[in-house]
Parts: sequence; structure tokens; C-alpha cells
Amino acid sequence: MTLIEKIKDNIELHKESYLEYLQAIVKEPSTIGYEASAQKLVEERLKASKLDVDVWIPQHEELQKSEFYNPIRENYDESPNVVGVLKGTQPDGRSIILNGHIDVVPAGDLAKWEHGAYSGKIVDNKLYGRGTTDMKGGNVASLIALETIINLGIKLKGDVIYQSVIEEETGGAGTISAIQRGYKADIALIPEPSEMKIFPKQQGSLWFEIKVKGISAHGGTRYEGVSSVEKGIIVFNQLLELEEKRNKKYRKQELYKDNPIPIPINIGQFNGGIFPSSVPEETVIKGRYGVGPDETINEAKAEFQKMLDDLVEIDQWFEKYPVTVKWEGIHLPPGGSDLDHPMLEILKDNYEEVEHEKPIVAGSTWGTDGGLLTQYGNIPSIVFGPGTTSMAHFTDEYIEIDKLFKTAEIITLSIIDWCEIDD
Amino acid sequence: MTLIEKIKDNIELHKESYLEYLQAIVKEPSTIGYEASAQKLVEERLKASKLDVDVWIPQHEELQKSEFYNPIRENYDESPNVVGVLKGTQPDGRSIILNGHIDVVPAGDLAKWEHGAYSGKIVDNKLYGRGTTDMKGGNVASLIALETIINLGIKLKGDVIYQSVIEEETGGAGTISAIQRGYKADIALIPEPSEMKIFPKQQGSLWFEIKVKGISAHGGTRYEGVSSVEKGIIVFNQLLELEEKRNKKYRKQELYKDNPIPIPINIGQFNGGIFPSSVPEETVIKGRYGVGPDETINEAKAEFQKMLDDLVEIDQWFEKYPVTVKWEGIHLPPGGSDLDHPMLEILKDNYEEVEHEKPIVAGSTWGTDGGLLTQYGNIPSIVFGPGTTSMAHFTDEYIEIDKLFKTAEIITLSIIDWCEIDD
Repeated sequence: MTLIEKIKDNIELHKESYLEYLQAIVKEPSTIGYEASAQKLVEERLKASKLDVDVWIPQHEELQKSEFYNPIRENYDESPNVVGVLKGTQPDGRSIILNGHIDVVPAGDLAKWEHGAYSGKIVDNKLYGRGTTDMKGGNVASLIALETIINLGIKLKGDVIYQSVIEEETGGAGTISAIQRGYKADIALIPEPSEMKIFPKQQGSLWFEIKVKGISAHGGTRYEGVSSVEKGIIVFNQLLELEEKRNKKYRKQELYKDNPIPIPINIGQFNGGIFPSSVPEETVIKGRYGVGPDETINEAKAEFQKMLDDLVEIDQWFEKYPVTVKWEGIHLPPGGSDLDHPMLEILKDNYEEVEHEKPIVAGSTWGTDGGLLTQYGNIPSIVFGPGTTSMAHFTDEYIEIDKLFKTAEIITLSIIDWCEIDD
Repeated sequence: MTLIEKIKDNIELHKESYLEYLQAIVKEPSTIGYEASAQKLVEERLKASKLDVDVWIPQHEELQKSEFYNPIRENYDESPNVVGVLKGTQPDGRSIILNGHIDVVPAGDLAKWEHGAYSGKIVDNKLYGRGTTDMKGGNVASLIALETIINLGIKLKGDVIYQSVIEEETGGAGTISAIQRGYKADIALIPEPSEMKIFPKQQGSLWFEIKVKGISAHGGTRYEGVSSVEKGIIVFNQLLELEEKRNKKYRKQELYKDNPIPIPINIGQFNGGIFPSSVPEETVIKGRYGVGPDETINEAKAEFQKMLDDLVEIDQWFEKYPVTVKWEGIHLPPGGSDLDHPMLEILKDNYEEVEHEKPIVAGSTWGTDGGLLTQYGNIPSIVFGPGTTSMAHFTDEYIEIDKLFKTAEIITLSIIDWCEIDD
């Protein structure tokens, strides 16, 4: 029996147990501030495998030491991080972090969910519920890899560090805290919903809020005022120009060949004025600013600010009434690994071994905790997970069960190749 | 003693009484639904002058017979209309309606009023309070004219019909009801706050709400969606083009020579999108559409609709996703008199007699009940009042006392010239 056959068999043997575990953690609605009960299940599972398990409450004061910390709360008492370590046999063995977040976005209108927002119900090949795709299904895939290695009695040279972190959806406090606690590795694998594509580069993203001023007046004598919507449209157009300029170089790259806008500037909200019969006095433009994998947040912000500063060359108005920007909400740095990183080759080979076709390798269009691991933890990161991208954050979110197990197989093989068996 | 000297003397004699009466009606906060107490004071005042006084509650069912009725309520029990008639001596004498509304817009944050929102406090030449300018001060000016004629024992050939109506600020139900009750005249004078300018033409105004569709998508893959803000900007630009086209002919007219945009399209609100990181799916554009004095509401709407229909020639998008418009809220037809109407000459002459300078004659930039009198009642209307335009609807609203009395003099002389003394 080959190693791959043993792995397949062992996963097959425990399939029901894995699905039951996934259902159990999906049934805990681990939205921000309510992660404790789901994390308790993770903790028990890791302890059952006799791993060294570390459970701790991230501390606001400590987190504040990181420039990447962008808090939306100060108290994490109900939001522990959980880490389990499978120690390697050799101190210089190649180590890996399996990072995944336990927090989920709110389920929205519960009545709209066909199978229940936290049911974990299985219909055909799909397991339903908030967080199944983003990313409890991915977390279970990497847990299967870990348990399969243990079940098969394989001894690895390097450490495997399984991280179940909080707060990815709202800023990354969980992963920052894990880095601060000293968890390091030579590579990080994050099973976010990539639909089994391999993302060696992950986009960062920043939310911006721009304010554009006008002068109010009665609508009947609107020429006495200045419309903040008219001025806001100038800003809107310059945002599109900035996006075009920033994307030129990425479009030429192999990694982005199928993506017309690799690092988009999404203008999600444009709100001007408060009364039909008054000239709008203020316009607020909110959006998401994609950060390229090869730039820092500060570099990206500086280019944005320059565009705002240059507005005065288009319209003198902006000299007296400068446009201001605030960076609030999502604040994820880009992440990734070098394109010649050996782990990338390992993943591609194992994908082909299991799937009998070449994998799609691309740059992610969204941010993950990989950015923090890369830029703050100095740990290269690769995203590869079973979830369906388009179902993340949506009603009737599901994970495809066959993809979950295929991903688990590929991760198992890749951990073994990376950390190496100690005969 | 000339007639004008007698008029001046008589007004001077009763000045304190007129100011006390204005203070009394300002102290009654006659916002929509609460007009009864202020109207009671008007009724008593007209009865004290031995006029035929008519007080009635407008009826929703009756009002519905008018195509101009655009109700925001169905019950007027606390909102009577009051009309007092000074009968002329001859059935074919030239008659006049003095129309003014008793309702006021809400005072907003009361704490922001320096002298109290309903105080009627006098400081130097100004009498303060909600409704002083718009338009209780104007109503008192025309009441002074009426009482001065009575005080001086002048017998006029034509009727003078003094109307204190409800609901101008929110649609005109009071004036519609007065027309339906049969009050007719050869001219209507409305002392709305024109700053003693004479407006023989009054703009109509309609509020519009436009909906523009897009297709939502995640901001990271925004190219999978269509931004309703981008499409909304196309509509925004076409609204400006329509405004330009509609204003060309007015700009050439003497009446509008000082007005760069005689019939403006004010885009007061532009709201697209609900989330920074999603492609906006719907944009709502709200505004005020100025209706020219020589067109009907339906003609103005048809030109607007044609612009929306023609959007498909600019962008195919609008074929599958047509832009829709709703006409809700303010719905005032334009009004006015012919520019060679004899009453216009009378007003101009008397203005010059009293003020020793030529009056400013222009087109109003806002709608009044004059539109209903003209289009529904078939009664030409002219606006001429003492209030300060910019203070209407604003905090610390006031009326300038000297202007109030000057206006009263001019109206007195003009009524006499128009209705003619019966020797």
C-alpha cells in the first residue's frame, strides 16, 4: 500500500467523525465576541490527539504594540485563541503553520436561509451553514491532515502548528496575538476558500472613507451653492484613473492573466446630500482599496493620498476645500510567498497527484491573515482551501464535501513532503 | 392731505396694534395639523372689521377631485381655512384675492433659536420667529391694506377677498379648497417673501426620485458586477444637460436677466451602495425639478421622461435596466400673470411712488400657491411681499418691520387703483 493509499483509506475511515465535528463547530455561531464555545470544541479535539495545546485570551495592551493592530474592540474575554503543536523530531526540521480563523460574519436575516444558518445540514454533497466555506470547512481539512499523520504514526522532522484564531473578519487581532506569542514557522498554509486554487500571493485591502465638501443653498437658487456631488464625481473619476494606473503592471503578470482588475479600487458607497431641494453640502465616498502583494500598506496609502493632493490641479475648488480620507474598518496587509518557494512546488505536485490535472495558481482578490503572517510575522504564506469563494458571507453558504476531503489529502501529502518523515 | 398721506398716517396710527397682532399669530406654532389656534385669531380680526367671514374645514373627498391635489394627510379637522370678504359696490368691479398661508415649516432644534422660535420678539427693526418671513409678516401687510381701506371709509367697486389658507408648505390643499369653494377674482396677490421684488412669474417645482440599477459583486472582483454609481453618474450628467437645454430660452428673457439658472434641476441627493466592499447595486437620485411659468406640470414631466428614455442611446445598459422616476413630495404648478397685466403696472407705479426708485421685476425661483390659483383657479397671480427670502425655513427667521409697513402701503395703494374707488 502506497502512502497516498494509506492516507485515502485513513481519511475514508474517519469521514463520518470529521463531518460530525464540522457540524458541531458550525452549530456554534462564532461571530465576533462569541468565539469561546466553538474554540472549546477545537481545544478538546486537539487535546484528544495528545497535542501540546495552548489556549489564551489576546490582550488589547499587548496587541497595541503592533502597527498592524486596528481594533474594533478592547476586550477579548470570550474570544480565546487556540493553538495545538505536533512537535517535530529535529529542531532544524522545516516547520509549518496551519492557520485558520474560527470567527464568522453575521448570518443576516435567518429566515432567508433555506437549511438554517447554523444547521450544518448535509444535502447531497453540500454541508450548509454560516462559516462552512469561510472557513470552518478549510479548518477541518487541515485538521484532517494533522490527525491523519498522527493516525498513521508518521514522525515528522519539523513542527506542525495548528492555529484556530479569532477576529480575521474584522482586523486580524487573533493572528497578531499568535505572532506576538512567539509562534513561528518556515511557511504558513491558510485554507481560506480558494476553490482549491493555489494563491501564493494575496491581496491586501483597506477600507477608505473620503469626504468631499460643497456649499449648501436652496435648490431654487442652486447657482448660489456648490454641489458636493459634482465635486465628488471628480474624485470618483480620479479613483478610477488611479486604479487603472496601479493595475497596469499586474495585468502583465502570469499570476493575474485571468483577472482584468488584479488590485481593484471598489467604490462601494457614494452618498451626497440630505434634502431634494437643497444643494448637497457633503459627499462621503466609501470603498475598498486593493493593496498589491509587493507593496506595503503605507506605500499604497501614500499613492492614494498623492491622488487626493493632485485634485487641486484638476479643480481649484480643492485648494480651499481639500478632500480628506480616513482609513477605517478592514485594514489587511498583503501577503504571500516567493514564486519559487519550494512549498509552492510541493503543493502543485500533490494537487496533480490527487486531482490528475494541473492546479490553477493565481493571486487572491481578497485579503487574509496571510498578510499579517508575512508582513508582521515574517512568515511566507500560501492560501489553498476547499471553500467556494462566491459563497463566503452569503446566505445559504455551503462547503462541497468531496472538495473538503480532496483538499485534506493534498494538505496531508504536502505537510509530509515539507516537514519530511524521520525514518 | 393726499390719499397717500392719509394712508401713511392711518398705518402709523395703528402700528403698535399691527405688530401685536403679528406677534400673537407668530406665538401660535401653526405647523401642519396645528393651524386652528392661529386661524382663530385671523377669524376674530376679520370679524372685528365687520367683513363677511367664512371658516371651513377642507374635505379630503372634495379635494381629491382636483388633479393638483397631492395629499400628505386626509384629515383637516384642526386645519380650517379662513376667508374674509370686503364686498365691492359694483358686481362688475375689478376684484382681488389677497392669498397667504398660515402654515409654517417646523422650527427644528428650538435650542438653536437666539430669540425663541415662537417668541415674536422685536430687536431693532426685526421681529423674530418661525413664520415671520414665510409668511405671517406678509399676511399682516395685506391685512393692514384691507383695514386701512376700511379705516379711511373708502368704498371700492370690486371685492377684496382676504384668504388665510392652510397647507402651502406641503402641497396646497388650502388654496385648492378655497378655489373649489368658489372664490374667484380678477387677480391674486400673494405676499410671499420676495424682499419687495415683484414676481409676475412664479416657478413651479416637482420633487423627483430616480432609481438606477447595477449588479452587485464582491469588491475584490468588482469586474464581475456593474456599479450603479457609474451608471448614476451618466444620469446625473444628463440631468445637467436637460437643465442647460431647458434654461436657454429663459436666460434671454428680461425677467431672468440676473438669474444664471432660471428653472434649475437641483440634484439634492445621490445615494448609491450599502457596503464599502461590494459593488453598488442601486443608486437613488433625488432632487427638485423647476417648472417654467409657461409650461404645465405634465409637459415638464414629459420632457424629463424623454431624457430618461433617451439614456439608452448613451449606454445600452439602460435598455435592460431602465431608469425609473417617481414624482413624490413637493408638486407645485407654476403660476403668474401676463407681463402686460394692468395690475403689474399698478404695483410698479405704487412701488416707485412709495420707495422713490424702480422696483425689481423678476421670476421667482420657488413655487407658491400662485401656481394653483393660476392653473387650477384660472386666476392670474403676482407675488410681492416684505419677507427676506433667505430666512424662509431657517433658524432665527425674522421680518424687517419697516419693509412690512412699506409693503402694506404699496398694497393699499394698489388695491385702491385696481378695485377703483366708487365716488
